Amino acid sequence: MTEHSNEFYMKMALQEAQNAYLKGEIPIGAVIVIDNKIIAKGHNQTEILQDVTAHAEIIALTSAFNFLGAKYLMDASMYVTLEPCVMCAGALYWSKIKRVIYGASDEKYGFKCKTNHSIFHPKTEIISGVLAQECSQIIKDFFKQKRNEPKK
Amino acid sequence: MTEHSNEFYMKMALQEAQNAYLKGEIPIGAVIVIDNKIIAKGHNQTEILQDVTAHAEIIALTSAFNFLGAKYLMDASMYVTLEPCVMCAGALYWSKIKRVIYGASDEKYGFKCKTNHSIFHPKTEIISGVLAQECSQIIKDFFKQKRNEPKK
Repeated sequence: MTEHSNEFYMKMALQEAQNAYLKGEIPIGAVIVIDNKIIAKGHNQTEILQDVTAHAEIIALTSAFNFLGAKYLMDASMYVTLEPCVMCAGALYWSKIKRVIYGASDEKYGFKCKTNHSIFHPKTEIISGVLAQECSQIIKDFFKQKRNEPKK
Repeated sequence: MTEHSNEFYMKMALQEAQNAYLKGEIPIGAVIVIDNKIIAKGHNQTEILQDVTAHAEIIALTSAFNFLGAKYLMDASMYVTLEPCVMCAGALYWSKIKRVIYGASDEKYGFKCKTNHSIFHPKTEIISGVLAQECSQIIKDFFKQKRNEPKK
């Protein structure tokens, strides 16, 4: 893995997913990169915030807008461990982000289930399958652990 | 217009749209109602926050989750002045909201342009066209005024 490769930044997104895992959140993470620098990070916080919009991508986007003081991300790439859902794909559309690179596919809730690439901005490049196995495994491990926890 | 009718609550959403207008934001407003009580309100704040995710619906949803301390809205109705975009429809899906009632159609960015009702939760009822003319007119007025403002 070379520095600044897609795998390098996906590893950073996986660290965010790990942060979510440690908090009892479904482990999904995202980072946003401009000019080889990470300008924003986010991980799923739907449980702690009791807010179904608090997906890793939305948190990372809002953080990026705050950091830049701007609401478009034409020069940015988002790395996210799981295929974005329809909501997050819709948010990424509005951001006009340059590239979205995701890890594992989400056969149940990913944007592809009910839509297709056309819900992204026409200028947004989509790349999938980067470290897919690791991105998927952390979620499987999380749910396996959840199932084995004593019922409250 | 009777109290607690769809038109009554859409008027409240229009008041939120008016609040957006007065701040120079595209005038779109939303309210969330449970048991005939408004529990949350929101209006578009994408300019002031420089955040493309700050749509009326998202702000109202997050406000409702905070108010209830819960992340599902199975007993709630959202009234929103404009047809939700894909992002907002995706957020409403996750909320499992009971009903979405919108005013004007959005032929350019509404969820219907690129998807269909199936992106909503199967238990969510969708009603359209409530006070559509007023909901549309406020947006037309806003852009007309914008076009007539002296260029900065």
